[in-house]
Amino acid sequence: MKVELEKVAPKEIEARSFEIITQELGPHSFAPGTEAIVKRCIHTSADFDYAENLCFSEGVVEKALEALRGGVSIVTDTQMAKAGINKKILGGYGGQVHCFMSDEDVAQAAREKGCTRAAASMEKAAAMGEDLVFAIGNAPTALVRLYELIKDGKIRPRLIIGAPVGFVNVVSSKELIMELDVPYIVAKGRKGGSNIAACICNALLYMK
Amino acid sequence: MKVELEKVAPKEIEARSFEIITQELGPHSFAPGTEAIVKRCIHTSADFDYAENLCFSEGVVEKALEALRGGVSIVTDTQMAKAGINKKILGGYGGQVHCFMSDEDVAQAAREKGCTRAAASMEKAAAMGEDLVFAIGNAPTALVRLYELIKDGKIRPRLIIGAPVGFVNVVSSKELIMELDVPYIVAKGRKGGSNIAACICNALLYMK
Repeated sequence: MKVELEKVAPKEIEARSFEIITQELGPHSFAPGTEAIVKRCIHTSADFDYAENLCFSEGVVEKALEALRGGVSIVTDTQMAKAGINKKILGGYGGQVHCFMSDEDVAQAAREKGCTRAAASMEKAAAMGEDLVFAIGNAPTALVRLYELIKDGKIRPRLIIGAPVGFVNVVSSKELIMELDVPYIVAKGRKGGSNIAACICNALLYMK
Repeated sequence: MKVELEKVAPKEIEARSFEIITQELGPHSFAPGTEAIVKRCIHTSADFDYAENLCFSEGVVEKALEALRGGVSIVTDTQMAKAGINKKILGGYGGQVHCFMSDEDVAQAAREKGCTRAAASMEKAAAMGEDLVFAIGNAPTALVRLYELIKDGKIRPRLIIGAPVGFVNVVSSKELIMELDVPYIVAKGRKGGSNIAACICNALLYMK
């Protein structure tokens, strides 16, 4: 074995990772409460672009914690993000994670309206008529429909995590959300993903 | 709405995305069969680093397709990757996706041995005594244990997808796998993730 491995006990791997991230990030100024979110996104992706990409509306961390700790549920646009969100901590507060992407009624609504299932699943969420946090990690069409639903007064999310990834309307869908007077955490630009959406939820859930 | 959106029909979003990726990637040479994998990783992450990061053992795509189409199951180290892998296509060939990370016997074995659950879950996979594909998207300790199990003659994977992400032993765990005479697809360096591991599986499953 020519390759050298660092000896780190299982329980210390995460702390050691955050040490390395902090060191490599160097001096950096963070809006209040956002440091743990930025660093966890870098931890999840090994991509330091998130130190520049992440945009936070004013006071969003406080508002997000109030929602999550108050038992508000999370709606996401991918089964992967649903799998990745810490449901034990969220459930302790009384919240659940919903993903409607595989629901037959959503598939049918999307066919009828000629929209994506992600957009149709936002309408299903709005129809729930309850306070919700949105964690969008895949589909810009979900963000665009959320924008429209908010403009039409049909929903008032407690938080939007806007982290779709890709090449078609991804950048602009995030800009739309940042025009709104709504608490948001947005990964500006093309990057994001269900891992990033889940990781932002978890960074909030892990805060003391 | 000052933000401009491109009009793309739901069914055409993926094709349009791959068009943009191909265009921005420019002239690029790919080992046989690997182009779809590289482009899907970029599609999943919006990160063109994957055009350089991905390493393929000789003839790996052919060997991988033979395994998956022959009904070989996939073992992964995260519930997120399990959620992301196309189980409909895999199931059509007769394969399943296993993730042992939440299993009580794995948690206990990890406690007793002072190793990570990811490492213990590789031992559980080896004990199955069947042909397997491994898709590692999180834990370098899983790759290191796989390396040891292979060296000890306890398992002979049909394919290793090595895409853990992070800062502690991630780079070196991938180098270890690339020393072996085993079919591999490895995301060299720190980057990777459960989304990348799942996406490489899906790129293989979607091939005609």
